[in-house]
Amino acid sequence: MAKASNIFWHAGEVSRQDREKLLQQRGAVLWFTGLSGAGKSTVARRVEKKLYDMGHLAYVLDGDNIRFGLNKDLGFSPADRKENIRRVGEVAKLFADAGIITMTAFISPYREDRDMVRRLLPEGDFIEVYVACPLVECERRDVKGLYKKARAGEIKEFTGISAPYEEPLAPELVLETHRESVEESANKVIAYLRKQKIIPGGE
Amino acid sequence: MAKASNIFWHAGEVSRQDREKLLQQRGAVLWFTGLSGAGKSTVARRVEKKLYDMGHLAYVLDGDNIRFGLNKDLGFSPADRKENIRRVGEVAKLFADAGIITMTAFISPYREDRDMVRRLLPEGDFIEVYVACPLVECERRDVKGLYKKARAGEIKEFTGISAPYEEPLAPELVLETHRESVEESANKVIAYLRKQKIIPGGE
Repeated sequence: MAKASNIFWHAGEVSRQDREKLLQQRGAVLWFTGLSGAGKSTVARRVEKKLYDMGHLAYVLDGDNIRFGLNKDLGFSPADRKENIRRVGEVAKLFADAGIITMTAFISPYREDRDMVRRLLPEGDFIEVYVACPLVECERRDVKGLYKKARAGEIKEFTGISAPYEEPLAPELVLETHRESVEESANKVIAYLRKQKIIPGGE
Repeated sequence: MAKASNIFWHAGEVSRQDREKLLQQRGAVLWFTGLSGAGKSTVARRVEKKLYDMGHLAYVLDGDNIRFGLNKDLGFSPADRKENIRRVGEVAKLFADAGIITMTAFISPYREDRDMVRRLLPEGDFIEVYVACPLVECERRDVKGLYKKARAGEIKEFTGISAPYEEPLAPELVLETHRESVEESANKVIAYLRKQKIIPGGE
C-alpha cells in the first residue's frame, strides 16, 4: 500500500501495516455521499454494527461529531462547504492510517470536493459509496423536516432543491436505498470490504 | 465515563464502551507539551511501540501528519497557533472516542490553549504530559538546527527564545528527559496508563 508522502517514518516505529496486523483488517475510507435523507448515516451505522459483531474496529464521522466540533467554525457558504469536506478528508486519512475502517456520512454534493479527498488518500483507500435515493423519495421521507423548510424558502441553498447535487461518475459502490432495505445495503458494503480484502473472508 | 454532550447516540449503535471492550483498553489523550527538542515525539513513539508490543492500539498526532495535512492552511500567528491546537484537540477527541490511546506531540506553549483542549474532552480523557527539559539542554541538542536560526533572528517568535512557554501548573505527568532515558520516560507513561486502568495490569 502506498504511504502518504507527507508522513515520515523512522526506524523502530509502529507502522500502519503493524496496526493493520493487530486489528486484522485494512484501514480504509468509505465515503458515503447522497442527498439529505438518502440514508447515508443509517447505512453507515448498520455497517459499523456488523463490523463490530465480526470483531472489527470501525468509526463513523458525520455531522453529529464533526459539525459541532472540528468544523464548528464553518458555515454553509461554498468556501466553507469545501473546507468542511477537506478537513473531514484529512481526518479520515488519519483514521485510515491508524488502521480503522472509517466511514464518513456527508452530503458532499460536489464532484470536485470528493475527488480532492480521493487524491488526498493513498491509492485504494478511498471508496466512494453513492447512496442513490431519488429526490422525490428523500423529500417524501423528510425525516428532519428540512425539505419542507427548503421548499418554503426558510433554508437557502439546500441540496436538491436550491443547490445542485453532482452524482458520482464512477463510484466504487451504489446503494439504492429506495429499493433495498438498510440490511441489504449494509450487506453490499460488507461484501465489497471482503472482496477488497479490507476484512477477511473474501474469495 | 462521561459522554461528550455534542455526540448523539441512537439505540443499536456501537458505543465508545463497545469499542473499548473490543480493544481491551480505554480511549484517552496523552497531551505531550514542552519546548522544541524536549523529546515529545521521541517519547510518544517509544510509548506507541511499547503499547503495540502489548497488543494495544495507539496513534500519534504530531507536526508530521498534521501540519502538512489538516492544518496546512495555518501559519504561526497567535490566532493560527490557537486554531492549530483547537483542531488537534478536536481530532484527538474523535480518536479517543474511537477507543484509541491517542498521543499528541506539539509544543503547545500556552496554558489557555491546553486548558481549552482539557475542557473539550470528556472528564478523565485528557492527560497532560509535561516534557520538562530545560531550555539550555534543548538548545544544546538543537536536533533540527532551529535554535541556532532563532538566535540569529532567522525564525521569529520561537518558543523559549523570542516567544513564551507557559509551564503546566498541574500536569498529570512530568518527564525529565534531561535526567531520564527515553526508555525510563516511556515506562513512566506506561505505569500511569496502568494505574488509570487505561490498559490492564495496574493495582
